[in-house]
Amino acid sequence: MISVVILGSGNVATHLFKAFNQAEDIVINQWYSRRITAIASYKNDVEIIDDLSLIKDADVYILAVSDDAISELSSQLPFENKLVLHTSGSVSVYDIDKKHKRGVFYPLQTFSKEAEIDFSTVPICIETIDKKSYPIIKNLALTIGSPTKRVNSDQRKVLHLAAVFVNNFTNQLYRIGHEITESQGAEFDLLKPLILETAKKVQDLSPFKAQTGPAKRHDKKTIRKHLKLLEDQHHEDIYQLLTTSIQHTHGRKKL
Amino acid sequence: MISVVILGSGNVATHLFKAFNQAEDIVINQWYSRRITAIASYKNDVEIIDDLSLIKDADVYILAVSDDAISELSSQLPFENKLVLHTSGSVSVYDIDKKHKRGVFYPLQTFSKEAEIDFSTVPICIETIDKKSYPIIKNLALTIGSPTKRVNSDQRKVLHLAAVFVNNFTNQLYRIGHEITESQGAEFDLLKPLILETAKKVQDLSPFKAQTGPAKRHDKKTIRKHLKLLEDQHHEDIYQLLTTSIQHTHGRKKL
Repeated sequence: MISVVILGSGNVATHLFKAFNQAEDIVINQWYSRRITAIASYKNDVEIIDDLSLIKDADVYILAVSDDAISELSSQLPFENKLVLHTSGSVSVYDIDKKHKRGVFYPLQTFSKEAEIDFSTVPICIETIDKKSYPIIKNLALTIGSPTKRVNSDQRKVLHLAAVFVNNFTNQLYRIGHEITESQGAEFDLLKPLILETAKKVQDLSPFKAQTGPAKRHDKKTIRKHLKLLEDQHHEDIYQLLTTSIQHTHGRKKL
Repeated sequence: MISVVILGSGNVATHLFKAFNQAEDIVINQWYSRRITAIASYKNDVEIIDDLSLIKDADVYILAVSDDAISELSSQLPFENKLVLHTSGSVSVYDIDKKHKRGVFYPLQTFSKEAEIDFSTVPICIETIDKKSYPIIKNLALTIGSPTKRVNSDQRKVLHLAAVFVNNFTNQLYRIGHEITESQGAEFDLLKPLILETAKKVQDLSPFKAQTGPAKRHDKKTIRKHLKLLEDQHHEDIYQLLTTSIQHTHGRKKL
């Protein structure tokens, strides 16, 4: 049995709470948030607090707070030499106050309040300073069914950066698809199977092999038609840059 | 029973052949390709030809050829007043020779030789000039289990353009994620669940609501870290442009 205290009230904190709460081998001793109203609806499931002086003993403290809050909150914790983890992809493990045993529990996934998460699809990237902390962090991930990967700081930061490309930027391309279709009387819904298939394809095939379309074919006629159809300069810039990028990858001349 | 002749040997032609071949209410009279060797491996399943003068009578002729070949091939067909469809997202239905009954059977999906296709996830966008052709085209799609949508030329072209954003450009972002991780000693495989979840999320949630990350949060510190980490000027340009795009969408100032 691993005992944890969760700190924070954002998406990651909330989804971790739900997963830990359902896991058999984890007990959540407390859930802390500075803004206790944000987690008040869970008060029948767990002890909620907004006062760090009330914090109880636990095996692991999880700082699922915003990047900027990690350092200060870790200093304010009224104990030392306990295992304290943050969940950020980009913050250094050394941002955690050195009075603690420090580590990172970075769930490489997108979390929204609105969407349920199946933690078996959430790789947990684990980073530790002392090796002895590793097994307990790994067990913590396993109890919620997540695959784990031990990474160093550089790898974690690169994964976080790459995640911005494949998640935030990709989602913005979906948004542009939405804008283009809806502004011109077509249905975005028709694109949803394509969106899903595009993501499924690279589960087995490399993105290099999966590529198709006018940019890769260097199909100037279609590219010209598309640029003409685009009404927003901003969309046009993105079209040009990504077309060039595809042609660069696939050994063609620039647009 | 609908009888068809398929013309072309590319990915769309091949996947349509396989789907029609399995469908109960369709008979494939012939499969034509200029390069008969490309389809020779199917000669036990269907009559293959490379000579248009041998073409047989059928209810529907499907020109699954490259955009540039549609017009000429349709003129060369040695008959008239039959239903002839092309499968392109961007070519005008009027590119088909006017001696035929003309229509479009545009499967809004990504096709690769390597990946099997489930046609129940392929919306068929149907365009016709004369209304009488519509029911047979719709039936053709239904026999392979595809949902259908009647569109006009403008809608089809806009869908094709949007498809480039959500498919080709998205796939290029996956490719960049691959380049960034592999060049810096991290595993692209760790990003695959995130890629899938990002696509799944917008099946129910709008891309606007699904957005997260440093650009949306206007998290300058993380954005600066990421730009510093990027080693390729080209990746940096894409990072900047899509960050600005997200901030534009979510009502923030420019980067």
